[in-house]
Amino acid sequence: MERKEIERIVRQVLATVGERGGNHTTGSRSQMSEKSQPVQVALPLERAVKLIERVEQKASQMGLAVVTAVSDASGRPIAVHCMDGAYIGSFDIAVNKTYTSIAFQMSTEQLGKLSQPGESLYGIQFTNGGKLVIFGGGELLERNGVILGAIGVSGGSAAQDLELAQYGKNIFEEV
Amino acid sequence: MERKEIERIVRQVLATVGERGGNHTTGSRSQMSEKSQPVQVALPLERAVKLIERVEQKASQMGLAVVTAVSDASGRPIAVHCMDGAYIGSFDIAVNKTYTSIAFQMSTEQLGKLSQPGESLYGIQFTNGGKLVIFGGGELLERNGVILGAIGVSGGSAAQDLELAQYGKNIFEEV
Amino acid sequence: MERKEIERIVRQVLATVGERGGNHTTGSRSQMSEKSQPVQVALPLERAVKLIERVEQKASQMGLAVVTAVSDASGRPIAVHCMDGAYIGSFDIAVNKTYTSIAFQMSTEQLGKLSQPGESLYGIQFTNGGKLVIFGGGELLERNGVILGAIGVSGGSAAQDLELAQYGKNIFEEV
Amino acid sequence: MERKEIERIVRQVLATVGERGGNHTTGSRSQMSEKSQPVQVALPLERAVKLIERVEQKASQMGLAVVTAVSDASGRPIAVHCMDGAYIGSFDIAVNKTYTSIAFQMSTEQLGKLSQPGESLYGIQFTNGGKLVIFGGGELLERNGVILGAIGVSGGSAAQDLELAQYGKNIFEEV
Repeated sequence: MERKEIERIVRQVLATVGERGGNHTTGSRSQMSEKSQPVQVALPLERAVKLIERVEQKASQMGLAVVTAVSDASGRPIAVHCMDGAYIGSFDIAVNKTYTSIAFQMSTEQLGKLSQPGESLYGIQFTNGGKLVIFGGGELLERNGVILGAIGVSGGSAAQDLELAQYGKNIFEEV
Repeated sequence: MERKEIERIVRQVLATVGERGGNHTTGSRSQMSEKSQPVQVALPLERAVKLIERVEQKASQMGLAVVTAVSDASGRPIAVHCMDGAYIGSFDIAVNKTYTSIAFQMSTEQLGKLSQPGESLYGIQFTNGGKLVIFGGGELLERNGVILGAIGVSGGSAAQDLELAQYGKNIFEEV
Repeated sequence: MERKEIERIVRQVLATVGERGGNHTTGSRSQMSEKSQPVQVALPLERAVKLIERVEQKASQMGLAVVTAVSDASGRPIAVHCMDGAYIGSFDIAVNKTYTSIAFQMSTEQLGKLSQPGESLYGIQFTNGGKLVIFGGGELLERNGVILGAIGVSGGSAAQDLELAQYGKNIFEEV
Repeated sequence: MERKEIERIVRQVLATVGERGGNHTTGSRSQMSEKSQPVQVALPLERAVKLIERVEQKASQMGLAVVTAVSDASGRPIAVHCMDGAYIGSFDIAVNKTYTSIAFQMSTEQLGKLSQPGESLYGIQFTNGGKLVIFGGGELLERNGVILGAIGVSGGSAAQDLELAQYGKNIFEEV
């Protein structure tokens, strides 16, 4: 095992100290209907919403109405917002872009390149129950090299969705 | 045409003055990737998020971590939030509760009563591609008697989900 | 707010005066089984059926047996007709063509161009639960620049379906 | 084989002389995009639409907005109409009621009785991919004891749907 890989594992462990993995996998929920304690997660809802709102501001400046989704490191949605006037079809695409990025630990744009006809992963778009998106707009959200989740944007052209998702990825550490 | 009917139509028109139907049906979007003008809708994202946040405050007071969804009058999602620690399974349920309420213009609790074994609509829960929820937590959102959308809450017991969704329904006019 | 934007809003409001959004979102239905008042919608069933019949006349002249679907501005079906001898498989395609047009506010032919291998949206056909159609035959139905619904035709070649759907789109204001 | 059974088979054959089985199974279609001859089917679109319109007249008198579907003897839809203001959720239910009636050659009400908890077919509602409806509103359409198709009505209470579907069944020979 290389030093780089070990570092990555350590960082992953540290990232979840005092936290409980994904938003939805707390590991300490009791029975349905019982009281639960506040839960600390690696990517809290509050932060996901702040990130989404920043992306929406940029989308507005670009004259776009987009759907933005943020999912946790398990690919489970944390928050989804549809801007007024966004495409009906963009809800599924935005959520699926987060799933795709998490599922294969890369951006949907990268997967798109690998899955063109003739390329090595051509055909992956037909697996996984229609949940894989192979054009830009899905990006991993990382902190210190540890993946905490993914962002998916849908509503503009593929290039615009890509720009917005990358913007979200870049400002993620700030929010 | 009776006065009552005319009144109803006028209310509907007023409800859509300066608005454009559902969030996702802007009616005047051009090509993907082109600039779009700001769109006003009957139930804007901003209002949906405010409503969700109010419901989340109450859920926190109850010691619950819930998923809350708000959809438009066509049953298309506008916003979904998963509180930290909410059940993974609650995402689909919250969204489907909004769909169910819109699909049959009643709360999921009402539909639940009609679809018990031996009741007149027993079996409806198996008919619409697994998207119908027949226990409490899905409520219609109305303004002046006009349905603008629906709210769905999932994460507590059925009674708690019902309480939270009804709370959301009741404060909807305020937010 | 610019004059153009105001005009657009006024047209939208006028389009819904005396109407109630989609066919299926009456906004004021009470309990199942109670009496309901007549409802006026933006795209009434009567008009959808007239449009379908006109398209069927043209299909007959072309020697074709097609399935024609009309959906509202939310992508919910209003009417579907299968001409005698039409393909079994055309029912889903015609309905999905209306969904696709509404979901991305463009014709299925336009989406088809963007989703060819190597094009920017290649792969979108695999993202929305198998409901996206990317060849001709789905067109938006507009009045004064406001989208009221969509028409989907299936049963001939893609070129014939396209011709018939465009014919429907063009005569929509007349019927 | 009993006399009654033979009679039924003979009637079935006679019913399709000069015809081509279901609407969608003509058995003589050539290639897609080629010209096709007019097709005669056991339950033509024209007749299905007339039947639907009669049911809609009665629904209007009852103050209801329903979805009415007619399918052929193979359970393939011929026509579906959604009255203005009908429930979004009724489209699937009306179509599935026709499928259910054809699939088991009985009304959905009859199947409903057999599939209550404790009854002999309890559990059938979970098979067939969520396409079975087990409350009233789906009826077989027959001519001289031969099944030509089925009608499905959804939008009122189960009792009202049943009344409307039975009305459609009864007037079927007239239209």
